[in-house]
Amino acid sequence: MDRFFAFVGGTSGIWSVASAATLIGEGLPSVERVDILAAVDNSGLANPSDALWTLRGVVSHERYVTHQERAELRLRSPALNRPEATCAALIPLRKNAEWWAMAQDERRTILEEQSGHIRAGMEALPAVARKLHHCRDLGEPFDFLTWFEFHPRDVSSFETLLEHLRRSEEWKYVDREIDIRLTHA
Amino acid sequence: MDRFFAFVGGTSGIWSVASAATLIGEGLPSVERVDILAAVDNSGLANPSDALWTLRGVVSHERYVTHQERAELRLRSPALNRPEATCAALIPLRKNAEWWAMAQDERRTILEEQSGHIRAGMEALPAVARKLHHCRDLGEPFDFLTWFEFHPRDVSSFETLLEHLRRSEEWKYVDREIDIRLTHA
Repeated sequence: MDRFFAFVGGTSGIWSVASAATLIGEGLPSVERVDILAAVDNSGLANPSDALWTLRGVVSHERYVTHQERAELRLRSPALNRPEATCAALIPLRKNAEWWAMAQDERRTILEEQSGHIRAGMEALPAVARKLHHCRDLGEPFDFLTWFEFHPRDVSSFETLLEHLRRSEEWKYVDREIDIRLTHA
Repeated sequence: MDRFFAFVGGTSGIWSVASAATLIGEGLPSVERVDILAAVDNSGLANPSDALWTLRGVVSHERYVTHQERAELRLRSPALNRPEATCAALIPLRKNAEWWAMAQDERRTILEEQSGHIRAGMEALPAVARKLHHCRDLGEPFDFLTWFEFHPRDVSSFETLLEHLRRSEEWKYVDREIDIRLTHA
């Protein structure tokens, strides 16, 4: 159960919404705060009464990185919940049917050899802590819930990463993306 | 929802249990029949009153096969529900933490280059129809629910496939496996 999380949009939680932008596809209702619930049972979730949306995801095994890439990522990745990392972003993403119909080698080629997704993430380290939640196989409305944490001074590293990804070949397969920026005191 | 299934062990369904063997790990209660429910909502499942167990799984994207391998598999794979395929097997499997801690390239190397999993499956075609359901990220007790259908005369093709896999390097990471054989009239 320690791999299961829910992101609850409403009026609870330490993270206040600073901005929310729908880049492609359907948006989500605007909320004041986002709460992160851990160990959320997959078989059902009591929606807090003030929640406007609840997005569930699971931290799963690595899907694309090689042993070498992962070793380097781990060496450079900061922990989550650094006290100074008062900025965060929750970016729910969905990819289209064409993406999911491809075989593993085709998806890896687009993701890394053509789009440099892993390399770009590496360049944003150790500034931008990152955690990926999978949700496509949970029957959720998104395929991924990506979560980032960084110091306010490192916002440009984060923007550089996003600009790189959104210009990439891989992003041609993204058909729903919402960029929610958060801060906490 | 068309990717979600539940296998219900009890007294309902067209498939009668001919035998059940626990190869490694904890077993499951013995049942007379297995029912297959389609489009089962992930967020909750009404257990039929006669069910002794319910295992949920989702048909997901390809995790290991290359474009080439998949093209060949598709060319040779028979449909499910062939009238003459009156034998089936449900094999719930779990792999250990060491397997899931490996990166994609390490798992692929063990699965195919060392264990010939995809090649062995190919050799059992077109005799043995196969369908893989994923369940690790659903918080289920197994990681996979594998389903096979074949004509009674092709049982030896199926046994050859199982013997190959169970002797393989990949199977050293399997820590729970139950082999349930079924027939229907």
